[in-house]
Amino acid sequence: MIILVLNSGSSSIKYQLFNIEEQEQLLAKGIVERIGIEGGALKHCVNGVSQLIVEKSIPDHTVGLKLIFDHLTSAEGGVLKELSEIDAVGHRVVHGGELFKESIVINDNVKQQVVECAELAPLHNPANLKGILSVEVLLPDVQQVAVFDTSFHQTMPKHAFLYGIPYQFYEKYKIRRYGFHGISHKYVAQIGAKLCNKEFTKSKIITCHLGNGASITAIENGESIDTSMGFTPVTGLMMGTRCGSLDPGILLFLEEKEQLSIRGISSLINKQSGLQGISGISSDMRDIEQAAGEGIYRAQLALDMYVYRLRKKIASFIGALDGIDMLVFTGGIGENSYRVREEVCKKLSFLGLQVDSHRNMETCGQTGIISSHESSVSVAVVNTNEELVIARETYGILNNTNKG
Amino acid sequence: MIILVLNSGSSSIKYQLFNIEEQEQLLAKGIVERIGIEGGALKHCVNGVSQLIVEKSIPDHTVGLKLIFDHLTSAEGGVLKELSEIDAVGHRVVHGGELFKESIVINDNVKQQVVECAELAPLHNPANLKGILSVEVLLPDVQQVAVFDTSFHQTMPKHAFLYGIPYQFYEKYKIRRYGFHGISHKYVAQIGAKLCNKEFTKSKIITCHLGNGASITAIENGESIDTSMGFTPVTGLMMGTRCGSLDPGILLFLEEKEQLSIRGISSLINKQSGLQGISGISSDMRDIEQAAGEGIYRAQLALDMYVYRLRKKIASFIGALDGIDMLVFTGGIGENSYRVREEVCKKLSFLGLQVDSHRNMETCGQTGIISSHESSVSVAVVNTNEELVIARETYGILNNTNKG
Repeated sequence: MIILVLNSGSSSIKYQLFNIEEQEQLLAKGIVERIGIEGGALKHCVNGVSQLIVEKSIPDHTVGLKLIFDHLTSAEGGVLKELSEIDAVGHRVVHGGELFKESIVINDNVKQQVVECAELAPLHNPANLKGILSVEVLLPDVQQVAVFDTSFHQTMPKHAFLYGIPYQFYEKYKIRRYGFHGISHKYVAQIGAKLCNKEFTKSKIITCHLGNGASITAIENGESIDTSMGFTPVTGLMMGTRCGSLDPGILLFLEEKEQLSIRGISSLINKQSGLQGISGISSDMRDIEQAAGEGIYRAQLALDMYVYRLRKKIASFIGALDGIDMLVFTGGIGENSYRVREEVCKKLSFLGLQVDSHRNMETCGQTGIISSHESSVSVAVVNTNEELVIARETYGILNNTNKG
Repeated sequence: MIILVLNSGSSSIKYQLFNIEEQEQLLAKGIVERIGIEGGALKHCVNGVSQLIVEKSIPDHTVGLKLIFDHLTSAEGGVLKELSEIDAVGHRVVHGGELFKESIVINDNVKQQVVECAELAPLHNPANLKGILSVEVLLPDVQQVAVFDTSFHQTMPKHAFLYGIPYQFYEKYKIRRYGFHGISHKYVAQIGAKLCNKEFTKSKIITCHLGNGASITAIENGESIDTSMGFTPVTGLMMGTRCGSLDPGILLFLEEKEQLSIRGISSLINKQSGLQGISGISSDMRDIEQAAGEGIYRAQLALDMYVYRLRKKIASFIGALDGIDMLVFTGGIGENSYRVREEVCKKLSFLGLQVDSHRNMETCGQTGIISSHESSVSVAVVNTNEELVIARETYGILNNTNKG
């Protein structure tokens, strides 16, 4: 069964093509960039080796998708004889609100509900929908599945997902904690549990997804019970350019003092803050670590803040879970920065948690256990693979649906 | 030595009069209310027994203070023969910014700096200053001392007190975490340490000041290293009417949807949120507990949220401290609600922390140990007494100054 996975943004489409029943083989992957703006391009990659770059104006998502299809079936670099070999398309959809507690086969009703959730993710859901509609145009007979970044967190209890503002705003606007990165958190928790001989459905697990965006999740017996991102992705951990948790009084102070508009504040806390805002150097942890190593004060400060806030958030979730069996790191920083992992873990020694320094330094960009044999808590690094999860979900749900 | 302690608000003056060298005896206490607004009144209390209420128009702080002085020296209910018996006045000043790391004898320079800090506490510092100036008018020769609610937290390291927004806002406006209730946190930590046979300067202590406003502090070796209130008092724990920690993205969403002004949002998150906003019933934990006991859903929800968020914050500070030796509860809720204490502690069992149910239920409005003998962490309830701390600070600093 051949499954195409699409992650459609407002001006891009990322794709991966899997032969899911043949050891989940990745046949091709790539990205269409700068849709609707000058400098459109396709980057297409087969077998993780050859990369083809086509520069071409791409006015809309349907043209972008057509370009992907052309290359999937082209004589040189193609991996399919014809498009009809694609059995299903799985879409990443960012926001499922309270409507979608799991992945679902897309029909007219689902599309309508994705639109309804767009108020909660005005940048993402409309783009995700464009991807869905483009597939309908080009492959009208193929079944499509929506996999939501929020679904995994729908098991959070109300005392964890509500904010301390008047209850009416939950009723009126559904303002609550939703959380994101759910596809990744669930996946790395499952892989980590296998690796560390824990039962996913009987363990207390904390997963740290540390990429440019970053969030952590508390998982109890296989279910998300709390997560650090909230109503929006700006809160929780400090990130590349997002501020993370912030005294809301500061926004009011800044709005008044700097005469900033809502849009100006939004840009400030989403795009100019975090590692970038503190260091003044870069939003990329690799640059920050290098600069800190060179003794640049504000880079070291950004690193210290990043680690300190992450450690406090992990500890707070240990309080939510009343304990922890396993801690998992993933995402670009989580998989690659042994320094961040080491610094975070070394002051969790009160738990009896111990990281093996050698293992930790050796585990870079790969999956592995980094806790010592004596550690009371297992610590693992897991490469995340959200596209594979979407392909699996698509496969699983269509198999069940077709049987049922 | 007779010390008068004043806590001046925008329309009130709370006062306590101590004979500090005579076993810190409280001679009289009271409050002047509704200064500058209709319905002015003085409530005056001697020996904690008789209470005198005088209703009278009180146009400004100086008139209010004069009224207090008249009653302190009156034939009936007075405790002083003449005003000259007052040796010193200690003032609670809310915000000392980064300028005041400890209490200080008030002079012209200090008054100027209290004004400078008013930008950070526009409601409080100007009122505190009014109290200082009124004393100057009525008792021009008496020494005055300022004791700041923020000073104790000035030991926080930079990675704990900075926010993840561009560094320039710290340089330009001194936007950072300051924390409040410092007078109370320090006091109850010291009393708790004595009670539990811990050395204050060699212990990891977390203090929970749970009143209508609420904050918790992580104290390492006698110094505050982190606290839950921030740049403003609205953040951190959920409180009576304050929201506590909140995704800043929610403010932007609400400003847009509800067309709220900065003042409107400020009122929303400071005065209409917290226990009041969730329950729709009351901002008072006693009412919430009663309503929850009667099965009222949103009262139970408010209680669950309050406890859950408090537990997470305590745990996060355990992560900051890499452990905990003692947990202290104080403030109206902390001293009186055995349910809140029990609910918070029972899911901190991973630490080996155990509360003795019987001791906990018996300890209501009094100081005492509530952990079991087996508990790995001492848990205490301590009656806070911010006025006494101010009197002691005033005494201590004047004794040192006069010697030096």
